[in-house]
Amino acid sequence: MNQSYGHFDDARREYVITKPNTPRPWSNYIGNANFGGVITNNAGGYTFYRSAAQGKLTRYKFNAMPGELNGRYLYLRNQANGDFWSNSWVPVGKPLDQFKSTCRHGTGYTTIESTYDSISSEVTYFTPSGALYEVWKVSVTNHSSEPRTLKLFPCLEPQCNWSAEDDNKNLQYNQYICATSGNTQLIDIGSNINMPEDPEHFENKDQARHTFFGLTGIKANAFDSDLTSFLGTYGSYSAPEAVVKGRCSNSTAIGDMPAAAFEIELQLAPGESKTFACIFGVGKADIEGLAACDAMATTESIDAALHAITTETHRKFESFSVETPDDAFNSMLNTWAPYNCLMTFYWSRTASLVYAGERDGLGFRDTMQDMLGAMGMELNEAHRRIELLLTGQLSNGGALPVVKPFAHTPGAMKEPEHYRADDCLWFFNAVPEYVKESGAIEFYKKVLPYADKGEATVLGHMRRAMEFNFDRCGAHGLPCGLHADWNDCLRLGEAGESIFVAFQLRLALREYIDICQRLGEESEVEWATAKLTTYDAALAEHAWDGEWYLRAYRYDGLKFGSKENEEGSIFMNPQAWSVISGHADSSRAERTMKALKEQLSTEFGVMLCAPAYVKTDPSVMLGVLFNPGMKENAGIFNHTQGWAVMAEAMLGNGDQAWQYFKASMPATYNDRADLREVEPYVVCQSTHSKFSPRFGTGRVSWLSGSATWNYHAATQYILGIRPEYDGLRIAPCLPSHWPEVKIKRTFRGKRFEITIQNGSETPGIYLNGQKLETDLIPFERAEATNQVLVQA
Amino acid sequence: MNQSYGHFDDARREYVITKPNTPRPWSNYIGNANFGGVITNNAGGYTFYRSAAQGKLTRYKFNAMPGELNGRYLYLRNQANGDFWSNSWVPVGKPLDQFKSTCRHGTGYTTIESTYDSISSEVTYFTPSGALYEVWKVSVTNHSSEPRTLKLFPCLEPQCNWSAEDDNKNLQYNQYICATSGNTQLIDIGSNINMPEDPEHFENKDQARHTFFGLTGIKANAFDSDLTSFLGTYGSYSAPEAVVKGRCSNSTAIGDMPAAAFEIELQLAPGESKTFACIFGVGKADIEGLAACDAMATTESIDAALHAITTETHRKFESFSVETPDDAFNSMLNTWAPYNCLMTFYWSRTASLVYAGERDGLGFRDTMQDMLGAMGMELNEAHRRIELLLTGQLSNGGALPVVKPFAHTPGAMKEPEHYRADDCLWFFNAVPEYVKESGAIEFYKKVLPYADKGEATVLGHMRRAMEFNFDRCGAHGLPCGLHADWNDCLRLGEAGESIFVAFQLRLALREYIDICQRLGEESEVEWATAKLTTYDAALAEHAWDGEWYLRAYRYDGLKFGSKENEEGSIFMNPQAWSVISGHADSSRAERTMKALKEQLSTEFGVMLCAPAYVKTDPSVMLGVLFNPGMKENAGIFNHTQGWAVMAEAMLGNGDQAWQYFKASMPATYNDRADLREVEPYVVCQSTHSKFSPRFGTGRVSWLSGSATWNYHAATQYILGIRPEYDGLRIAPCLPSHWPEVKIKRTFRGKRFEITIQNGSETPGIYLNGQKLETDLIPFERAEATNQVLVQA
Repeated sequence: MNQSYGHFDDARREYVITKPNTPRPWSNYIGNANFGGVITNNAGGYTFYRSAAQGKLTRYKFNAMPGELNGRYLYLRNQANGDFWSNSWVPVGKPLDQFKSTCRHGTGYTTIESTYDSISSEVTYFTPSGALYEVWKVSVTNHSSEPRTLKLFPCLEPQCNWSAEDDNKNLQYNQYICATSGNTQLIDIGSNINMPEDPEHFENKDQARHTFFGLTGIKANAFDSDLTSFLGTYGSYSAPEAVVKGRCSNSTAIGDMPAAAFEIELQLAPGESKTFACIFGVGKADIEGLAACDAMATTESIDAALHAITTETHRKFESFSVETPDDAFNSMLNTWAPYNCLMTFYWSRTASLVYAGERDGLGFRDTMQDMLGAMGMELNEAHRRIELLLTGQLSNGGALPVVKPFAHTPGAMKEPEHYRADDCLWFFNAVPEYVKESGAIEFYKKVLPYADKGEATVLGHMRRAMEFNFDRCGAHGLPCGLHADWNDCLRLGEAGESIFVAFQLRLALREYIDICQRLGEESEVEWATAKLTTYDAALAEHAWDGEWYLRAYRYDGLKFGSKENEEGSIFMNPQAWSVISGHADSSRAERTMKALKEQLSTEFGVMLCAPAYVKTDPSVMLGVLFNPGMKENAGIFNHTQGWAVMAEAMLGNGDQAWQYFKASMPATYNDRADLREVEPYVVCQSTHSKFSPRFGTGRVSWLSGSATWNYHAATQYILGIRPEYDGLRIAPCLPSHWPEVKIKRTFRGKRFEITIQNGSETPGIYLNGQKLETDLIPFERAEATNQVLVQA
Repeated sequence: MNQSYGHFDDARREYVITKPNTPRPWSNYIGNANFGGVITNNAGGYTFYRSAAQGKLTRYKFNAMPGELNGRYLYLRNQANGDFWSNSWVPVGKPLDQFKSTCRHGTGYTTIESTYDSISSEVTYFTPSGALYEVWKVSVTNHSSEPRTLKLFPCLEPQCNWSAEDDNKNLQYNQYICATSGNTQLIDIGSNINMPEDPEHFENKDQARHTFFGLTGIKANAFDSDLTSFLGTYGSYSAPEAVVKGRCSNSTAIGDMPAAAFEIELQLAPGESKTFACIFGVGKADIEGLAACDAMATTESIDAALHAITTETHRKFESFSVETPDDAFNSMLNTWAPYNCLMTFYWSRTASLVYAGERDGLGFRDTMQDMLGAMGMELNEAHRRIELLLTGQLSNGGALPVVKPFAHTPGAMKEPEHYRADDCLWFFNAVPEYVKESGAIEFYKKVLPYADKGEATVLGHMRRAMEFNFDRCGAHGLPCGLHADWNDCLRLGEAGESIFVAFQLRLALREYIDICQRLGEESEVEWATAKLTTYDAALAEHAWDGEWYLRAYRYDGLKFGSKENEEGSIFMNPQAWSVISGHADSSRAERTMKALKEQLSTEFGVMLCAPAYVKTDPSVMLGVLFNPGMKENAGIFNHTQGWAVMAEAMLGNGDQAWQYFKASMPATYNDRADLREVEPYVVCQSTHSKFSPRFGTGRVSWLSGSATWNYHAATQYILGIRPEYDGLRIAPCLPSHWPEVKIKRTFRGKRFEITIQNGSETPGIYLNGQKLETDLIPFERAEATNQVLVQA
């Protein structure tokens, strides 16, 4: 049974939703790094400025049903009979046999078009490049044979208080701070308007703030800027009182809650169309609002702005494109996977339909990993972000849990209360990746401050990161898990040891040795090599449980992820990382990956651990907070799926790598959407595992480490295109049933057009017709454009 | 134009709402001190256990439109045609020409009845005395001449997470913790169900928690306990998918969000009625749920439980009743004012449609004042509460800002970051009031611990309170305002001085002298008398501005509430308190109260200050955060209205006292509800003043210091019935147009039936026919029941 609600349109890089009643709201992002918006296939969602926690501009009621309680709505009303509907199916919800709609989620824009009562309407939502406002381009067409008189009501619900948290709770304060004003062209929504502005201190809540909502290309009859006046005391978005009555009342909110809505009258002859736009943004109506309306005054300027952002985004994607026999894989890799990585890179875990604006800033460990997926597209931005995060490291080698770009002052930050063990070890994935991609090896010598005091070269920061863990080792000579070791639920105690972190540290040493060799830092190479030897010995002695690797030791020696454990007897991370880190020899690698497959893999992905925790005391494993089969309690935690893919590819098992990849690839479930429920075009954080009655259902879509690691595993391990210091490594590990794959890759400004012929009897790599000695294309031997033939 | 939506039914002590489309949701409370509920005239609202912050059991979307997004709903569906409605007008919202309803808000219960489609239904909501559950008693009658088949769907939306704050924001956690189960009789709603329970530590969020929803007197066909299954992904409470379809699906939530709903089929012959009940409470379905259903198994047991709580509550009100020529005043004083005081006493500022559960515990200063209004009704509970708060005082004399009953450990509490200047000075209102009401003068010698360390007698606590302020005086010898001096917006700086607090301190000294004289503490009397003299001199020299009293001095000498100030040139508090404290001599008292009247009083009450702040720097007066005419920025802050009444009554101005009282009395606006908007039966925190375009509109109803001070001013100053150490003072100050007033008062177990004849030419008080020398009835001269004639 086909349970699809839409399809990929690869040519336009869109996902097209043809049935609006998706199992969950399916969302997209509009906006840029300063001004963002989440928008669903039914125009639900919200907008934020700089931070969804402290700069939430419009409301969204999380945990409310329907999820679409707030959005960017356009109502249409037939003046002849008073019937009204919304361009998006929700919120009015006309019967689907009379109401037809299509939503096109594109890269930085969403278009929703619908037809009802012989009237078609279309709204395209986007934010121009660098702008602090969003544009709703509206077109309405009369397809009937009679002249029609319509009223249109575009509307949104601004926050009263920009703080996501305060807006919803401090009501005896919020009822007195709002002040709106408007006319038939432009509405100003202010809060605390008699306070001084303090733009230099974004985090200062006690300042005057304004947003605006304007119209271009048309003039309204009236407006509403008081929420009760627009909706009615007992009204709702499914039937706002103003829309029911057919008129706004020029209301202003002085105290109480704001709205922003216009009443527009349209007379349309048969076949006639009308186009106009709404602009919502940050600033005062009479300054920033007027300027934005001026900039978007004509259809031409709007179309040019839209074209510019799609061109800009698509150019990023073109740094890597692929053609394989698998259409779903192609759709993901050429558009949605990199787009998912970009949004995750921009917004970390701060703004989605699930991340409700309570996280303010960039989570250290997540952001460090998110870099990998965006590096090829946003090299300069990644460079800035890496530098920012390096200055979030403290002089003791640990890290701030969250770095807030607008409030970060390196050299003057306070120590955090707790440290996590893995934070700065992610340097060894992200920093070398940046240097390899850019070729800027001198970056290792750049001096950057620590968060609290002092400074060091980038290489010094990296060494300090390892020292932090060496200084905090336990009884088996392995690094302590501290407050958390990636898995926030393990309760190891202060002296407990994490074998996952031990593998991270091993990878770190290997990367460090490689760097120091290249920099000629001989004494550092010696130091790290000696550490590595000691370390491998400790791992060999204490990490192996007989058939697989342990997960951790608690402070008192209690094992996690051992056959001795009735619950959680095997964990995913250490098996994959024993391979990724290079520790496991081939025999152990095969055994441990076999255990992973037999005990953790399912048709929907690899479980984080098994069996699920039900009886274990939460002081041992707090994962028991969650229902069995969900999240850290034996759920399919998608962040980790790429690690299984990488490990299998590193072992040369292309079919198994592909099987793991496909199981967690969103597009795999396009036709099984009633099961998966969440979007088929982006990742989700967690899938219910076989320990849950909802096996296969996904939750928490879009922002997840899964975006980066899936993309990284696919591009660098399945397809095997890996940037290295000296050039581009071509080491594919394809599924055996793919005869040929074509890839285009831009690397340090040079273009590589790669054809991989799979299952060749005479392996070899040819650069512009010349056979190479190894699978590394030396950068200096490459031309501006290169043809690469890989017989694999 | 009569804008009323209902009327007072004094005989039943109910407010009866006959039009459901009130300007705002009009609410009531059901529940007791451990288990509470807010319920509106349209069944909106929520339920909580112990704390609305940490034990919020059902959802309520604050700041959502309509306010009624969540509630305790009963849907009815005509099986013949699929038409459905709700017993409360909202959420389905049938046209009001076809749908008739009445809501009776009573004392601890609410009854909503409606008629539609020849079917009448009635639901009474209440919580039995001491129970940890609420009962919905449902009756449905077929008034048509045909047999009818109906489906009924009672439902509510439990919180997934008991933390009010977390439920709404930590969604990537909340989506995985819920586990529900059920049958056609009883539903269990669990979260974190595999965690250990930890009932001793209510504030521990990481424990298993359960609520239940059960049926008695009927059996359902099916149930739903998964929210999406009941409402539909794009459904809403105005049209839940299960109700639209006419059937529940026995759904369970394992992860995702819970619901609690039953599908019940009723076959009703013409004229036939059916009665049953729903029970929602704290605990596991198979333990506490079964027990609750057993206890409420029959109509008789339900009716008895309802009768018991109303009897219990009404007995409290009978401690003071009045009969005056003003019906609105009678309705307020005999039921709604004391009921308002009781709810405010129980819940401080933690749970209403506005207080969204972010305040956890008893605000120190508010709670101390709230005592006054509840003393006559809840003497024992007030005693316990006073002792609790006395142990919230620190050994330095300051106070914890909030005392959390379930987490308070006297002797072991940490010092707060900031101190407010007024906190412990409210002792001098509440503690003597308790002793005077109870006669338990030995209470002053009871030893109680301080919050942090050490202990003292109650009298010692009181002395320490004054010392705290004496130790923190400024350049004029007046007490500093510290972090706040009642007005949270004044920015006086560390060394700034508050003249309001100075008057409080003067009252404190006077009360202290009185107590110490009675206890024979001569040296204390001397100490305090000397202080009083010094103090009065300082006040006389530095507090007077020429025509009225100043409000404060900033650290640098800048005045607040002076004719020198362009904004905020006069404040309400110091004028009234100069009289209340006994400082102002009669000449200054008259002048200052004249200034108050001329510059601050309006037809809707006395403004907190004037003119409003617009240009003043917020570092001087943070009130500029609010729009002009609202709250601390020159709003009519109703907390203070009773002080103006008291001051005028103390000066013998009965007509002026009555005018102030009436202006802020909710019932005054019963017929002007479209202006006032909030409930006409309870107080609101703040009324928009003339500086606002919404002059006269109230906000933040129910929980306010206004409840206590209005009631105190009316009973003890207008009616003039004041408990004193030696007996009952009868010192009325009635409006001149009231010829006669009758009062019944219970005082220390004796009954006083008092008739006041106003405007008498031969003043005098007769106790059981005997003329008294003074206006004090000596307690020992009173009988069990007494007739008191007052010629005033």
